Amino acid sequence: MKKEKVSNAVIRRLPRYYRTLYLLEQEGYERISSSALGSSMGITASQIRQDLSCFGEFGKQGYGYEIAGLLREIADILGMNNHYSAIILGAGNLGRALIRNFSFSSNGFTLRAAFDVDPALIGSTIGEVPVFALEALPDYMAANSIQVGVLTVPRNVAQPMAEKLIDGGVKGIWNFTNTELNVRGSGVTVESVHFADSLLALGYLISDNQKNTEPQNA
Amino acid sequence: MKKEKVSNAVIRRLPRYYRTLYLLEQEGYERISSSALGSSMGITASQIRQDLSCFGEFGKQGYGYEIAGLLREIADILGMNNHYSAIILGAGNLGRALIRNFSFSSNGFTLRAAFDVDPALIGSTIGEVPVFALEALPDYMAANSIQVGVLTVPRNVAQPMAEKLIDGGVKGIWNFTNTELNVRGSGVTVESVHFADSLLALGYLISDNQKNTEPQNA
Repeated sequence: MKKEKVSNAVIRRLPRYYRTLYLLEQEGYERISSSALGSSMGITASQIRQDLSCFGEFGKQGYGYEIAGLLREIADILGMNNHYSAIILGAGNLGRALIRNFSFSSNGFTLRAAFDVDPALIGSTIGEVPVFALEALPDYMAANSIQVGVLTVPRNVAQPMAEKLIDGGVKGIWNFTNTELNVRGSGVTVESVHFADSLLALGYLISDNQKNTEPQNA
Repeated sequence: MKKEKVSNAVIRRLPRYYRTLYLLEQEGYERISSSALGSSMGITASQIRQDLSCFGEFGKQGYGYEIAGLLREIADILGMNNHYSAIILGAGNLGRALIRNFSFSSNGFTLRAAFDVDPALIGSTIGEVPVFALEALPDYMAANSIQVGVLTVPRNVAQPMAEKLIDGGVKGIWNFTNTELNVRGSGVTVESVHFADSLLALGYLISDNQKNTEPQNA
């Protein structure tokens, strides 16, 4: 694998490649040209060839990509075979939605436990995930190797909860608190799911769409 | 406002500009240079000038951007003043998390109602949002002008529910079902929040980070 720095735009497209190829494989396809893959993803064939060239040689001229093989390669590039273990802080509505309905395992992660302060939840299980008291977090993290912390706590406790995860040795935080975390100097990677950014982009696209379909005043 | 086509990358950065400038304003700042704004967002000053030039002239050479004014302009570009009305289909864990904890109003949207099939929820209110029976959806949409449908239903009913929203006249769908919707020919914009894409990107960044901090074998 080449050691050059991969741009953020490419990193963001890799999961989309994975998802698109996975669906194509489910539908029974065995190979695909870069132009067909591009059109199903809304990007150009040359963009795809350029993206994948960051990681080595894939595909054959005039043959295209063998889907199962490319899926394995992308899974490997994405680190899906690292079997990272995750815990989740906050078993409120959003935490429960992720625990019950999001498949950590099909993305290569194992969700091991949830932590909350609500006595009604502590000691229960959600799906197959046990819910522990927040006070038990340091001991749990000392006894278990946890690479990822999922933050679904209220925004006003986001920063101290992030610090607990960092103290416990996580390598990454998946942040749903709609706030910016300060992790400087920790070496920890934060990936935030900003719902507002997505809704605002939708609003832009809707109003742009309507401008283009309404009669223009010259 | 210029009429040239704005790239998807710029559209994705606009909400981040808004969010960053909003926080700066909250912290009491009144103006900011493109280089300071860039460093707080992790992009270059020239990228910022180029992005904003898509929409007209902002900022003054040697003075920077007046934050309150730029915020208003970006809100306008994003269509935040269009006062779009939204409804949400699916008041399960994720739906409830959005209804209770996500501020539609501070992003310029009004969440008017939720729809579900669970008799225990129908007729209740979550926060101040009424929950109606799914069968009431067509009449509700005929009687109310709704531009945005939020989809937080199980994946296996995502497509038929999207079609109900399209039949009811929405302009956009905010899709949390982790599945691709087919809206071809409808003129409706779909914005999907793909949790998996975000988690996979985090996994990549963690493993890349560790490669770079571990001793390299030459």
